[in-house]
Amino acid sequence: MDPTSPLSRRGLIGLAASAAALSPFAGRAVHAHAQSPDPASGADPWLGLKIGVASYSFIRLPLEATIKGIRRVGVHYVSIKEAHLPLKSTAEQRKAVVAKFRDAGITPLSCGVVGMKGGQSELRNAFEYARDCGIPTIVCAPTSAVLPALEPLVKEFDIKLAIHNHGPEDKVFPSPLDVWEAVQKLDQRIGLCIDVGHTARAGVDPVKAIRTCSARLYDVHLKDISAREAHARPVEVGRGVLDIRGILRALQEIGFRGHVGLEYEKDMGDPLAGVAESIGYIRGTLATMRDR
Amino acid sequence: MDPTSPLSRRGLIGLAASAAALSPFAGRAVHAHAQSPDPASGADPWLGLKIGVASYSFIRLPLEATIKGIRRVGVHYVSIKEAHLPLKSTAEQRKAVVAKFRDAGITPLSCGVVGMKGGQSELRNAFEYARDCGIPTIVCAPTSAVLPALEPLVKEFDIKLAIHNHGPEDKVFPSPLDVWEAVQKLDQRIGLCIDVGHTARAGVDPVKAIRTCSARLYDVHLKDISAREAHARPVEVGRGVLDIRGILRALQEIGFRGHVGLEYEKDMGDPLAGVAESIGYIRGTLATMRDR
Repeated sequence: MDPTSPLSRRGLIGLAASAAALSPFAGRAVHAHAQSPDPASGADPWLGLKIGVASYSFIRLPLEATIKGIRRVGVHYVSIKEAHLPLKSTAEQRKAVVAKFRDAGITPLSCGVVGMKGGQSELRNAFEYARDCGIPTIVCAPTSAVLPALEPLVKEFDIKLAIHNHGPEDKVFPSPLDVWEAVQKLDQRIGLCIDVGHTARAGVDPVKAIRTCSARLYDVHLKDISAREAHARPVEVGRGVLDIRGILRALQEIGFRGHVGLEYEKDMGDPLAGVAESIGYIRGTLATMRDR
Repeated sequence: MDPTSPLSRRGLIGLAASAAALSPFAGRAVHAHAQSPDPASGADPWLGLKIGVASYSFIRLPLEATIKGIRRVGVHYVSIKEAHLPLKSTAEQRKAVVAKFRDAGITPLSCGVVGMKGGQSELRNAFEYARDCGIPTIVCAPTSAVLPALEPLVKEFDIKLAIHNHGPEDKVFPSPLDVWEAVQKLDQRIGLCIDVGHTARAGVDPVKAIRTCSARLYDVHLKDISAREAHARPVEVGRGVLDIRGILRALQEIGFRGHVGLEYEKDMGDPLAGVAESIGYIRGTLATMRDR
């Protein structure tokens, strides 16, 4: 690969950094840079998917270590968890944190999971947070009762909501199909974040759920689990039971353009090796799909 | 997966640990335990290949961190580099280090790269080292002049030699084809360790070399590089230009049963994330081959 090529990784990161320096939040330019092309073929190793990391994976680590870790595994997208940027923050603080990600070549595509179970000012603050970050999608876990109050905010801010299913323990939205049903009559910008692990723990096939809910699928939490049962443990992607290839193929086939965030919930005190192994597995799986 | 099943990982590691405690070096029981079965299918995620790590990847780390790192990435084989067990060591020291690997569920399948450029006592010591470790194969880099002196030792110890090609800078054996030619008239136990990175840097296709030299292929150094040229940099497996899937398929098709050791030569001071990403990529690639 020619490092001076406008498509080279260095060039892209440089371009993104320059653009960020000039105008870090010009609109919602979440496509400011693509992923690094594959050096063998020149193709996108991620097949057009925006594979990144949900910063929840690094929840016990400070912001700098989190950015370093995501950069280390070679992906360029993130979903920001509150631990790395508190919901109670000023617009300046929000822009400063996003600038740190962007300076490292990482584009924030969503935030969350944000609770959204409180009152009007809490709900509005979440939208202001996303707006200040230049983030197009909020991954959230509202109660059913809150849904009517969210619709005017979605319209006012033109920011999407991706309601996250949390598995069998979740009394409101255990599976994506529960979310899907609840949002049918709401604004099109209110949709889903399918968490493939919690989905399988709830007894639903994540691949089928992705296809069923594709019209309102705005974010994905990608992970692997030890068994297809409620009490399954989180494991490195590829060491568990989920059909990772099927999930990635379904996302590719529906033309998914939201964030596909690895959420690694094992070894939370020292997650980098597991995050790296998981990203390697995803990269290897996609490489085989690309070559077909 | 039922953790009480005799095929479970815990069970296998326990079995291997018990066997090691009873008789750590009973013959060369290098098949004392298999790799962990895939929890989804029950199949071997490594397709019968003995994927492990060349401990050279952790050369700047002490033995304990090296064992912990290899265990962390979920593989069960190692090729021991001198940094983790000096060639000048007593039989007791050698057995103690091997016991530490085995107690962690890791079987040493080879050692090296051992220089083997010196005199008779140095050559004999390398064979005694392998014998004391219960290791069936020595990865080595002899001069051409030394080859005649190695043949009687191979016969006396019944230990294989896997001559390692070191790329274009290597004046004796730049490519596996040079080794292949040099060993044709020697004892069958004198063969090759194909280093896929150095092979490609020498302008030879690693996939073709594996097939050409299969009859005397005894060890593999698996890695990836940034370009097919002499001055290529080492990179995480999957981020470079090598045809990793083609290499793995060739090894599977020739029924290779020697060590396939990841040798990660980037970030040598802190290699775990790159080792993990590389192993994840290999696991993901093999998963796709298995499902066909």
